[in-house]
Amino acid sequence: MNLETPYLIFLGDAKDALAAKTGQGVVDWRPDAVIGQLRLPGCRADLGVADLSIQQATEAGARTFLIGVVNPGGVLPKQWQGVIVEALEAGMDVANGLHTPLDSIPEIAEAARRSDRRLLEARRSVGPFPVASGRKRTGKRLLTVGTDCSVGKKYAALAIERELTTRNITADFRATGQTGILVAGSGIPIDAVVADFAAGAAETLSPDNDPAHWDVVEGQGSLFHPSFAGVSLALLHGTQPDAFVVCHEPTRTTMRNVDVPIAGIDAVIKQTIALGRLTNPAVRCVGIALNTSGLDAERANQTIEQAHRQFGVPVCDPVRHGVEAIVDEMLA
Amino acid sequence: MNLETPYLIFLGDAKDALAAKTGQGVVDWRPDAVIGQLRLPGCRADLGVADLSIQQATEAGARTFLIGVVNPGGVLPKQWQGVIVEALEAGMDVANGLHTPLDSIPEIAEAARRSDRRLLEARRSVGPFPVASGRKRTGKRLLTVGTDCSVGKKYAALAIERELTTRNITADFRATGQTGILVAGSGIPIDAVVADFAAGAAETLSPDNDPAHWDVVEGQGSLFHPSFAGVSLALLHGTQPDAFVVCHEPTRTTMRNVDVPIAGIDAVIKQTIALGRLTNPAVRCVGIALNTSGLDAERANQTIEQAHRQFGVPVCDPVRHGVEAIVDEMLA
Repeated sequence: MNLETPYLIFLGDAKDALAAKTGQGVVDWRPDAVIGQLRLPGCRADLGVADLSIQQATEAGARTFLIGVVNPGGVLPKQWQGVIVEALEAGMDVANGLHTPLDSIPEIAEAARRSDRRLLEARRSVGPFPVASGRKRTGKRLLTVGTDCSVGKKYAALAIERELTTRNITADFRATGQTGILVAGSGIPIDAVVADFAAGAAETLSPDNDPAHWDVVEGQGSLFHPSFAGVSLALLHGTQPDAFVVCHEPTRTTMRNVDVPIAGIDAVIKQTIALGRLTNPAVRCVGIALNTSGLDAERANQTIEQAHRQFGVPVCDPVRHGVEAIVDEMLA
Repeated sequence: MNLETPYLIFLGDAKDALAAKTGQGVVDWRPDAVIGQLRLPGCRADLGVADLSIQQATEAGARTFLIGVVNPGGVLPKQWQGVIVEALEAGMDVANGLHTPLDSIPEIAEAARRSDRRLLEARRSVGPFPVASGRKRTGKRLLTVGTDCSVGKKYAALAIERELTTRNITADFRATGQTGILVAGSGIPIDAVVADFAAGAAETLSPDNDPAHWDVVEGQGSLFHPSFAGVSLALLHGTQPDAFVVCHEPTRTTMRNVDVPIAGIDAVIKQTIALGRLTNPAVRCVGIALNTSGLDAERANQTIEQAHRQFGVPVCDPVRHGVEAIVDEMLA
């Protein structure tokens, strides 16, 4: 899946900034790709970019109408349909990270056909993908892994890609989930791939490359999450990372949506090496990314200091402190 | 997926007994479900059951026309289409384990619609399945795991189910691959499930049951196979087995279709316990099933004796010796 730039980001009638976090992610990480935002009456989010109508955006060269807002209840609101149809008729593709597939709405499907534009569903697997070969590829790879779901794996990967680029090291963020795909403009929703081909999809996502190039792959789930560990393992084997970063949220005690205690950082490091070794015997931990948003600054620093002493690798909160130390270690 | 019995097994123009091994599996493991076989001119396989025409089989009560033969080159031969259409028109469902989906052939799809009969594709995932919960279920479960693909996991599981039934212990073989599904008459092709729901499908496959009941679940792949380890892990976590049996082919040196040395039995036991513990802390190895078809009787016995000394659990070749010792251990 590849999105054409620039984007007009649609925020609908977002009730607050959190509802628009996909759009915010695109503005934060790909500002050059954003030409403006379109907000409906009642919208309470603001990405701080130009407000444009469909016509203004098209005249300015917009190629993709990117739905950057979540829909309450998982159903596409009626009042969004008209503007989506209008965007298609004006010549834009529409990119969607919502659960509701756009082509399930007859008016939208018909408008896409009529205008010969694409409906890009970031949650839907493309394919087919090959069965994984396990063959070692050229180039370098880093994977962010987690003690749980939703602990900052996407953010850490994006921050590492940016830091590498700042240092003039060629690197690509490789998205594996719907938000990451909309931010990156391409990727594979790995959890939507048929199980037999999940490792093969991960191989496809980070192909052979220049020896000094880094693919920075967004992790999914956790090797210790009973719902998703198989996906995490397929992603680990297919990515064959040279380096990994453990992402952790220190205030969490049980895993999301299940009654299982959260795994320790130590266990995740050991397990990732034990299992990752199958496709890359040189795999190593190059840092820990702590999401300390639930701690005050002093407690955050104490927690980071303690983890650094315990594990002997760089530890940081990518949001608060950036990822320079981790990137130093991955390049060492 | 549930197949109605009894079956008329179709062998087409099978060029030898090996081509008819799916049909042979059904006759071996579910003789009561088989009413006869239908062979086309030139067929060189024989399941040792009555040869029946479509009309004779229907009059005798056949409910499902089961394709028990593999098709050379993966394409459904033209000369099979007529008889499949005839079976549908006579009132039978058609069950298929071939790669070619029957509904991709217009004549067959149309005949199924016209006759209101089902085309049962054993390789196609049904669903939707829930995300796995990780919740402990009632009843007992055994999973066969492997050092590689195609080492006898299905055969070992079927033999264990039969031995349990002989001892008047309630048990169900739970099929996870297309051949197993055709043999069992039901099951879920786990590797065809979307990755996010693979563990959930495994939970669905072996639901809550009586405390003394055993589900004997057919394993897939290997935790050490770079193409399929994610599937194997999802199956392990979703099955939450109390007991597992390691299946191994002692003459194999590298894994099938990849350039990776085969894992040792020791490594598979340790890894299965380390990972299986997440959803069942009591998981334990109750035996080793060796596929010694590549060894003469003396060498087979030596290999079995050596493995028994090394691992301290019952070791047997299910084909040569049955699985009594393993079942003794799982019930201990």
